[in-house]
Parts: sequence; C-alpha cells; structure tokens
Amino acid sequence: MAKGKSGRGGARKAAPALRELLRVPGDDRVDLTAYDPAGTPGGPADKASGVAATAALGERLAGLQERLWAAGSAGDRRRILLVLQGMDTSGKGGTVKHVIGQLNPSGCRIKAFKAPTPQELNHPFLWRVVKALPEPGEIGIFDRSQYEDVLAARVRELVPRAQLNRRYGQINRFERTLADDGVTVVKCFLHISYAQQRRRLLERLDNPDKHWKFSPGDIEDRALWPAYQEAYEIALERCSTDAAPWFVVPADRKWYRDWAVSTLLLEHLEALDPRYPEARFDVAECRRRLLAGD
Amino acid sequence: MAKGKSGRGGARKAAPALRELLRVPGDDRVDLTAYDPAGTPGGPADKASGVAATAALGERLAGLQERLWAAGSAGDRRRILLVLQGMDTSGKGGTVKHVIGQLNPSGCRIKAFKAPTPQELNHPFLWRVVKALPEPGEIGIFDRSQYEDVLAARVRELVPRAQLNRRYGQINRFERTLADDGVTVVKCFLHISYAQQRRRLLERLDNPDKHWKFSPGDIEDRALWPAYQEAYEIALERCSTDAAPWFVVPADRKWYRDWAVSTLLLEHLEALDPRYPEARFDVAECRRRLLAGD
Repeated sequence: MAKGKSGRGGARKAAPALRELLRVPGDDRVDLTAYDPAGTPGGPADKASGVAATAALGERLAGLQERLWAAGSAGDRRRILLVLQGMDTSGKGGTVKHVIGQLNPSGCRIKAFKAPTPQELNHPFLWRVVKALPEPGEIGIFDRSQYEDVLAARVRELVPRAQLNRRYGQINRFERTLADDGVTVVKCFLHISYAQQRRRLLERLDNPDKHWKFSPGDIEDRALWPAYQEAYEIALERCSTDAAPWFVVPADRKWYRDWAVSTLLLEHLEALDPRYPEARFDVAECRRRLLAGD
Repeated sequence: MAKGKSGRGGARKAAPALRELLRVPGDDRVDLTAYDPAGTPGGPADKASGVAATAALGERLAGLQERLWAAGSAGDRRRILLVLQGMDTSGKGGTVKHVIGQLNPSGCRIKAFKAPTPQELNHPFLWRVVKALPEPGEIGIFDRSQYEDVLAARVRELVPRAQLNRRYGQINRFERTLADDGVTVVKCFLHISYAQQRRRLLERLDNPDKHWKFSPGDIEDRALWPAYQEAYEIALERCSTDAAPWFVVPADRKWYRDWAVSTLLLEHLEALDPRYPEARFDVAECRRRLLAGD
C-alpha cells in the first residue's frame, strides 16, 4: 500500500491492509446485514479518485503479473486464483472486464461456470473446477465456482442435505491442497443490496443493447434472495479458512468494487513478491555470438 | 475504415481495405524477400499517430466484440480465430498484449502452442488444435498454431516428407470446415527481418528483466533462418485460401504491427456485423413485475 506523507510530530499510523479490513473471520457467525453493500471501507474518497486509483493499480498489477509469469517459466509453481461470487448483477463480469482487463490476457485463465452439464453432473462436483485451474505463473479467474455447489445447490435443494453438508469440508480440503501446491486463492463475495439489484435489472430492461443480459428468471430468483443470503452466510462462515479466506467486497458502487478487487489482488501479489529469474546461460558469450553472426 | 474528410471538388477515393492490401494471393509463388518487413502499407504516417490510431481501434473492437458475444449468447454460432505466426521475437506475444489486451478478456480464448507433448504426439496433429478452438461468440487467439506442423516440422524434418506434404491439404480442409461452421479465420504472418531479430535478441540480453525470454537456442535457430523463410513461403502459398487467407504483416515496427492486426480484426468483425439479439420476453411486463416487488 502507498504510504501517506508522514505528518509533522510523528509517524502516521499505516492504513491496515484491505485484506485485513474485508476478510471474513473464520468460524464466526456471519450476518450479511451487518455489511453495508454501499460502503467503501479503506477506499478512495469518491468515484473520480477511485477510478484513477484503479487505473494506477492496473499498471502495478500488470508489472507484478509479468514477474509472476516470468518466474513460472523458470519453475516457480506459484499462481493466483481469484474467485468471484455474488448475486446476479453484482458485477462479476464487470470486474473481469475492468480489473482483469488491465492485465496481459496471455497470463490470465478465465472460466465462467454455468449450470452443470449432464457430463459434469456425472462427476464429483469439483471435477470441472480442477480442470479450470490456473497453471504456474498464471492468474486464474473463476466467474462463479465450486461455491455454486453449496449456494444454488442449497437454495434449490439440488442434492440431499447430508451430501450438501459434506461439501463445505470437501471445498476446504480442496482449497488447502491448492494452497499447498502454491495457489494463492482470493475469494471475493461481491455484496450488493436487493434495491441495487432492482436498479441494475431495470437498467438492463431500459437499454435494448442490454436485453441479452436479462432473463425473466432473474425476477423469479429475487424471491429466493433471503435464501441465497443465508446460503452465502453459511458458506462464508464455514469456508473462510487461513488457507483460503473469504473477502466481502461491498459492490453497490462499481468504482469501489473495482478498486477493492484490484487492491486485494495487488496485496496478494506483493506478498508473493515474484522475481524475474536469473539467466541460466552466459550472457556475454551469447552477446558475442549474436554480434559475430551477420 | 474511417473516411477522410472529402476534399473540395469531388469525392476522395476510398482507401483499399487492409485485408486486400496484405492478403497473400492464393496459389501464386510467394517470395518473402519481396515484402518489406519495415514497411507500413496503408498505415498511419508515424509511430505517434499509429499508437493513437491503435488505441482508437481498440475501443471499436471492444464494442464489436461485445456484440459478437451477445449474439453468441442467443444462438449465433459465428466467432473469430486469429492465428499469429512468425519467427522468434516477431511479436506474437506483444500483439496479444497490446491488441487483444484492449478487448474484454471474458470473450477471448487464448492458446499458446508449445512443442507438442508426448500425449499430443500420440494424436493426429490437429487434435490439440481442435481442443483450443473458440466457442460461438468468442475471439480465439492462437500464438503459434497448426502451422508449426508444417514449419518446425519441415525445417527440423520431424516427420517423413510425404506425411508433411499431406498436411497442407489437411490444414486447408480443416480451415474450410471451420469457415463452414461460422469461424472467421484471420491468419497473420508477423514478418520481421534477420537484422531486426538480432536487435531484439540483443535487447533481451541487455536487460536482466528480459533474460527469461531468452534462450541460447534462439541463436542456433538463426542458422535455420533461410530454411524457415522457405517453409513459410510454402505454407503461405499453399494455405492462403478463400476460406482462410494469409496476411503478411510487416512487423519490424511494433506500432505498425499492432495497428495492422487491430485493423484486420476490425475489418473482419465489421464484415460479420454482429447484432445485439432482440428480447425474447415481454419487456414492459418484466418492468412492471420488477417495480411491483418491494
């Protein structure tokens, strides 16, 4: 994080890292009504400065991404997996466009999970997830994820309750394995309000160029809002682990959402501190040979 | 293409489309020495205006990409496949970063082909290519492609000559099938000079942050330059078809390369003219229901 200029008469207290501010404490009961979807914790003062800050973060992210990629080319197995979850219109796609869109697309592996196909349903629920994981040096992005199997699956009662309840532990063990293998998992719940969702759905209806994003089922799903909030609370509560914590990102303000996800990515990349690998060849000798050729 | 303001005394002659200018005529003998790698055919006057033009093209590309994606979500099977080929340092990766980096990453499917794995070698050469194809609505990008199997394979004599010679027809039939299925294939040969490659390799050696991009094998490969140029000439000659023509993009100037690939993509997307799909639901009724809910 950038340091503020130190005031006269003593050092300024450093701002806490955003990942501390937004992190869901593990095992505690989660009450989503206690999180303000329109809040801007730790963020810039207003939209204009937020947009500018996100653009500046994009440059730093792209620089670190190249280092991560370079390190991966030399055997460093570390990588990032950004998991985006949230209700319809919460901005999962917008985050990919505005945050991930600032990175080099070569190093990004993006997977949008839809309702499982018949083939996917014939496999354990993590099967399709494993296939979409980022490779060393990459930044993976999940637009929806394994959590749909404890969210939609819970709300719509797609599997027996006992099977559903086993999945939280299965997800935790899976994510622990990822962490052990060098995958930094960054799970963001994009938290919007019921009223904000209505505004965004109306915007889609009012713009013919956005009709394709709308389905009448989106309205029916609003009746399930309380059940989904509860399913999210349970998932955040049971699956915010040290290996893979959850972050609640207030998402009613798109500029804050983009700034916050960018900042979370940056903090995790800075903690990894990837380095350009050193040459494993004789640089001077190669230089001489190149210049000797015509 | 943007039209220049018409001068006094009559209409300006429209500039020819870049895809006409750069296209390799099918079946004619190709002589790469007749193409100037430092040329800027049809392009902006200088680097500054080239960079500005590419940024402006990026916005138009992103708009068309969204339409293509939206149409794909409603059953339109059309998509783009951009194939990038060229010698080491010709800028395949740079093109992805600077041209594709201006698009929404959600709608891009990027595949960088390396030397085939043992598993890939156990399959027909097009096997791994088919698996990496873009889905409807997407823009696929191949950094290297099926053409390695008639380029590296020819120069390094990786397969018997008879088998190699069959591959040109196999590629043409494959690409014909893609075109029939709604895939617009845009094949760009990024054409650099032998001297320019040396400059770029030296740049990599002179910057420790770029050593990871360098391998001493890159120098040994320079001895194969004439053989590779010949292999490219044969591939361009035999595989520039109506279904999937080749374009020779002069690539000694990075700004021209980015502008030209952006322009080729734009011309092909404009020809597709993708449209936002119309609503298949009652917009007014949905609006009423949304407003009726609390």
